[in-house]
Amino acid sequence: MAGNTFGQLFRITSYGESHGDAIGVVIDGCPAGLKVRTEDIQRELNRRKPGQSDLTSPRNEEDECMVISGVYEGKTLGTPIHIMVRNGDAKRADYQYVESAFRPSHADFTYEKKYGHRDPGGGGRSSARETIARVAAGAIAKLLLAQEGILINAYVTQVGPVKMDKNILVKYDKIDENPVKCPDEDAAGKMIEFIREIKQKGDSIGGIIQCDIRNCPVGLGEPVFDKLHADLGKAMLSINAVKGFDYGTGFEGLEMTGSQANDVFVEQEGAIKTVRNHSGGIQGGISNGMPVYFRVAFKPVATIMSEQRSVNNKGETVVIPPKGRHDPCVLPRAAPIVEAMAALVLADHFLRHKTSKL
Amino acid sequence: MAGNTFGQLFRITSYGESHGDAIGVVIDGCPAGLKVRTEDIQRELNRRKPGQSDLTSPRNEEDECMVISGVYEGKTLGTPIHIMVRNGDAKRADYQYVESAFRPSHADFTYEKKYGHRDPGGGGRSSARETIARVAAGAIAKLLLAQEGILINAYVTQVGPVKMDKNILVKYDKIDENPVKCPDEDAAGKMIEFIREIKQKGDSIGGIIQCDIRNCPVGLGEPVFDKLHADLGKAMLSINAVKGFDYGTGFEGLEMTGSQANDVFVEQEGAIKTVRNHSGGIQGGISNGMPVYFRVAFKPVATIMSEQRSVNNKGETVVIPPKGRHDPCVLPRAAPIVEAMAALVLADHFLRHKTSKL
Amino acid sequence: MAGNTFGQLFRITSYGESHGDAIGVVIDGCPAGLKVRTEDIQRELNRRKPGQSDLTSPRNEEDECMVISGVYEGKTLGTPIHIMVRNGDAKRADYQYVESAFRPSHADFTYEKKYGHRDPGGGGRSSARETIARVAAGAIAKLLLAQEGILINAYVTQVGPVKMDKNILVKYDKIDENPVKCPDEDAAGKMIEFIREIKQKGDSIGGIIQCDIRNCPVGLGEPVFDKLHADLGKAMLSINAVKGFDYGTGFEGLEMTGSQANDVFVEQEGAIKTVRNHSGGIQGGISNGMPVYFRVAFKPVATIMSEQRSVNNKGETVVIPPKGRHDPCVLPRAAPIVEAMAALVLADHFLRHKTSKL
Amino acid sequence: MAGNTFGQLFRITSYGESHGDAIGVVIDGCPAGLKVRTEDIQRELNRRKPGQSDLTSPRNEEDECMVISGVYEGKTLGTPIHIMVRNGDAKRADYQYVESAFRPSHADFTYEKKYGHRDPGGGGRSSARETIARVAAGAIAKLLLAQEGILINAYVTQVGPVKMDKNILVKYDKIDENPVKCPDEDAAGKMIEFIREIKQKGDSIGGIIQCDIRNCPVGLGEPVFDKLHADLGKAMLSINAVKGFDYGTGFEGLEMTGSQANDVFVEQEGAIKTVRNHSGGIQGGISNGMPVYFRVAFKPVATIMSEQRSVNNKGETVVIPPKGRHDPCVLPRAAPIVEAMAALVLADHFLRHKTSKL
Repeated sequence: MAGNTFGQLFRITSYGESHGDAIGVVIDGCPAGLKVRTEDIQRELNRRKPGQSDLTSPRNEEDECMVISGVYEGKTLGTPIHIMVRNGDAKRADYQYVESAFRPSHADFTYEKKYGHRDPGGGGRSSARETIARVAAGAIAKLLLAQEGILINAYVTQVGPVKMDKNILVKYDKIDENPVKCPDEDAAGKMIEFIREIKQKGDSIGGIIQCDIRNCPVGLGEPVFDKLHADLGKAMLSINAVKGFDYGTGFEGLEMTGSQANDVFVEQEGAIKTVRNHSGGIQGGISNGMPVYFRVAFKPVATIMSEQRSVNNKGETVVIPPKGRHDPCVLPRAAPIVEAMAALVLADHFLRHKTSKL
Repeated sequence: MAGNTFGQLFRITSYGESHGDAIGVVIDGCPAGLKVRTEDIQRELNRRKPGQSDLTSPRNEEDECMVISGVYEGKTLGTPIHIMVRNGDAKRADYQYVESAFRPSHADFTYEKKYGHRDPGGGGRSSARETIARVAAGAIAKLLLAQEGILINAYVTQVGPVKMDKNILVKYDKIDENPVKCPDEDAAGKMIEFIREIKQKGDSIGGIIQCDIRNCPVGLGEPVFDKLHADLGKAMLSINAVKGFDYGTGFEGLEMTGSQANDVFVEQEGAIKTVRNHSGGIQGGISNGMPVYFRVAFKPVATIMSEQRSVNNKGETVVIPPKGRHDPCVLPRAAPIVEAMAALVLADHFLRHKTSKL
Repeated sequence: MAGNTFGQLFRITSYGESHGDAIGVVIDGCPAGLKVRTEDIQRELNRRKPGQSDLTSPRNEEDECMVISGVYEGKTLGTPIHIMVRNGDAKRADYQYVESAFRPSHADFTYEKKYGHRDPGGGGRSSARETIARVAAGAIAKLLLAQEGILINAYVTQVGPVKMDKNILVKYDKIDENPVKCPDEDAAGKMIEFIREIKQKGDSIGGIIQCDIRNCPVGLGEPVFDKLHADLGKAMLSINAVKGFDYGTGFEGLEMTGSQANDVFVEQEGAIKTVRNHSGGIQGGISNGMPVYFRVAFKPVATIMSEQRSVNNKGETVVIPPKGRHDPCVLPRAAPIVEAMAALVLADHFLRHKTSKL
Repeated sequence: MAGNTFGQLFRITSYGESHGDAIGVVIDGCPAGLKVRTEDIQRELNRRKPGQSDLTSPRNEEDECMVISGVYEGKTLGTPIHIMVRNGDAKRADYQYVESAFRPSHADFTYEKKYGHRDPGGGGRSSARETIARVAAGAIAKLLLAQEGILINAYVTQVGPVKMDKNILVKYDKIDENPVKCPDEDAAGKMIEFIREIKQKGDSIGGIIQCDIRNCPVGLGEPVFDKLHADLGKAMLSINAVKGFDYGTGFEGLEMTGSQANDVFVEQEGAIKTVRNHSGGIQGGISNGMPVYFRVAFKPVATIMSEQRSVNNKGETVVIPPKGRHDPCVLPRAAPIVEAMAALVLADHFLRHKTSKL
């Protein structure tokens, strides 16, 4: 049983190989009557595109989206919404050298073993180009959530050893203003510098993206398995290069005792809040009305601009030359992908919650 | 849409409130012909039971399982397997005081808001007692995996600030021999001491469990959404008190560059292996034949033996007295739960992979 | 992938072998706050029980239901509802003779081939006793639908060659008053007589059950695959011994032309109705507010009280002796099963429709 | 929760409005390594196309398919297969008159009520043009089944009052040779004549399609809900204009008693067969190795070439003029759709069965 569908009520199916004709997504379950303009989707795709700065891949991908079905006179019909992006800049020749070779830490080996053969062009289905489908669908989810006032913002908090100051007040509308998408200006400068060094060495680097969800209503999440943070975790871990997820105090609060970590409830202007928010806005798997926040760890991308030793499908030792046009650090481009996946989970749980009680 | 079913082909549905009549699970999709004895399930449940040592809750829960359906003459029928455990030691009176109060960092508040009312006894459905269903189902999954030689072991690597030595060689058959389930004897001693101190203070503490999967075949995992680690992550995050998940180098390897982190392939005795295993046995979301390993972060349990301030469902300030019989540190009892959830994911993906290619 | 779960949002999982410990069902997705009493479920189970008249099996099955979870202080919790019925009158010895033999038109042969082995007692999982799970779950669905005023009634319209008068006005509250559950008194008398003759001959007979759904709101049904009638059809065809389903004019209106069959819309007191109702209350797969009605064809049950020739699992010819205690005609007992399955489909689509539009 | 996905392991998602940019389908779960050529899909689409004879709509639809993803070097990749067909001959102007009017027995009224608004062009999503997605996906399913020798043929057995002789030997390779797709030449002649009369009157007519599945292996079908015939029934009932489904003796064998209807097993050359095949090749919901056969009842299409009275969305009485280019009888074009849906069900159950036993 294949795994290219995500979500239960707001459900997307992604398709497309990196160097095939197109990448696309079908959304089934978006309620009818939502106002959708093509530019709302394009704007999100543009935030993900390569070539936005010298920190990202110089590939020239137009990534122009077409809304093929499900929208009529500017409003969703309640029928499947198909969004397609043609693959323009595909250079199959660039990948002939890896037709039989297994690039280190890529999916070449596992795809070949699992499926018996594979499309080597740009990594085929395992390419991060597939995230176009997620960002396009996430743009629709964001429009749905915006009607409820729910806001989602992802930003870079760590690149390799460079970490942002945790005590800084995040100005969400400024995040996109610097090329590394870090709201701490000082740290941003150091990150940019660090990425440039890494790029010069032909190497790559990972880091952490944090995502904040504001105005999340109380009640989202479906225990005992589809807890809100469990679905967010799965969503994030399904993104290329992601190696870890935590929320609230996560891996960092393990030295706190229960008496320190527990979130005390108080009544504030008729609403029940917690004094602090170690829970990350989720208790028992259900949002409690406080801000939701979580962290996503990205490994350095596997493609580097140095020779690497490996084997091919005959078990022979081969040398992988430094080819292709890739990002030394994917985090700036990954922020909108994190937001998109979070939006898909939230939209799904927003709809799921509608039948929780009479 | 509720969320009490987990898995696609090896699919379980969990039911039961902590202080209701029973906790149980229905497994649909276990292949026919698997040898199953009630004692195979009971053994796993016993590993999870409270009262195993002075480190865990003194509650006396028999947790005796009954196999109600799906097994005939010692073999699975291919029909749904229902396993039920009666709730014996339920003391509803213990929870009258929280009928209207929202205990800090428990699910009382969110359940009441989501569903309109709730069963306060022992936390109702949000109780960790629900994990009985997971451990029982996981025991069947383990039997299925054992036929393929797949072995799953979870152990405690961190309790509060006490960490085990990473360089130690883990002896998997010794893990259950110490009460804290840590394979590093020195660290185990310190963890036990630390938990006793925490217990004496009426407080609680969290930590990290690592899980190793040996002999995992190549090919498990279903991109692009149901990647093996994404489903493992969701499984772990759905366990009570879990706040984080990572695999391979995870959150700890973020300072490595691509050239350092990449796993180089080599040919060894006809098989393709990687020299190191930063990938945690999974590449592109598919197992590559190397050992799979991941970490799970647990917060300190919310129930502590000290007075806590909170509010009730009228928004009035209340004081929660230190009542109930709970674990100062759940990690020793959580290890078999982690194993069970890992086994459920592996069994599901093992079956799913059967139709990947002609 | 096994098939013991039915429904999407109001989702049930059925378990249990005929002569195992129990038959039961877990409902996941019933909204919280619904008033449920055990007697509401028991009443429906009693309508399905054998031994209600001389027309049905003389087996003495108590079929007493227990609500194990999901209901607290008389109201659903929004958590899984587990209902269990112990198997009391199981006589395994009665079935020793068919341990290796394949009874004609039973599922013995196909279960053995599909699963490799089977539980021969009472037909194991293929027994119509499994429908207890459906009737119990359907009772909860009916309570949910009753809140919306939706009423479901099934009745027998044909037994073998005896057909009820189609022009009779059906009095729904009288259906259960005669043992054959046919609202046409004259036909009922003939049906009873006919079944007694069949019983005396040691034979069995089938027929047709019609089901009417009144006060079905406009808008239920999810094109293009989960059309309301498609899900009703699947639900009915999944019941033991069912061989056919049609709705509206169905198989009987095939000589009508479009101009005769088309349902003309008119405005009546502010609502849009159709003059006639050839569409059976469903257009384009979505309920249109007119009464929904459909027919279900049942074959004669395979167990008869005469010797039958067959083969065993070695391919040897055997003679099946006339044993067991069975119904000469299942239709009277099947009516509540048809209602239950219809209620499950309606409850599911009622919840599904809640997210169709903003 | 929307309903545009069909199948569990061989799973399709259909999208597209009649007069939108395109109709298409994404198949997720087709095993890797299956040889697929575009012409295999186009051939099936051509069998469904209008304009094949004077019996069908004169619309000129090219229905040229494009395989956008999932196939590389002529073989499936195990990744999603996207097939798209552009909508060429869309004449939106033809439908302006029904923008606000509800055509009798169309889905205009129910779509508007369910979703709040609708695309009136050609019926939007409710158009039978959507079946292009099914036929395209079914073509892939047929290729998969052909590898197992499974053959599926649908043919017309009744048009209005004209029925084919049941005792005729069906020559499957001749079915497509006459424009009405009836294997009984005499009946075919009368059907053609009858349809021409109906067409001349500006009216429409329905009928019955039978589908035969040969070489179906033993073991397909997943009790208790996903019985093979239950899933076939749902598949057929989801096709536009279908009002009924039966299999084996169905609605026609209701006068038979159990002793007459029961299928006696015999051993033949090492295999177990039944003497007759009243069961329609399915027992207990599982295929028994005998030919599977079922019948599908189609109502006359709602569009007719005569004036019809109706109401519009304001409840005002309107007159629907005889416009559009439609089929007087859809059955000839529906036969490949029935085959496609049957193939999708069989392919799905073929894959599902792979994990039934160890």
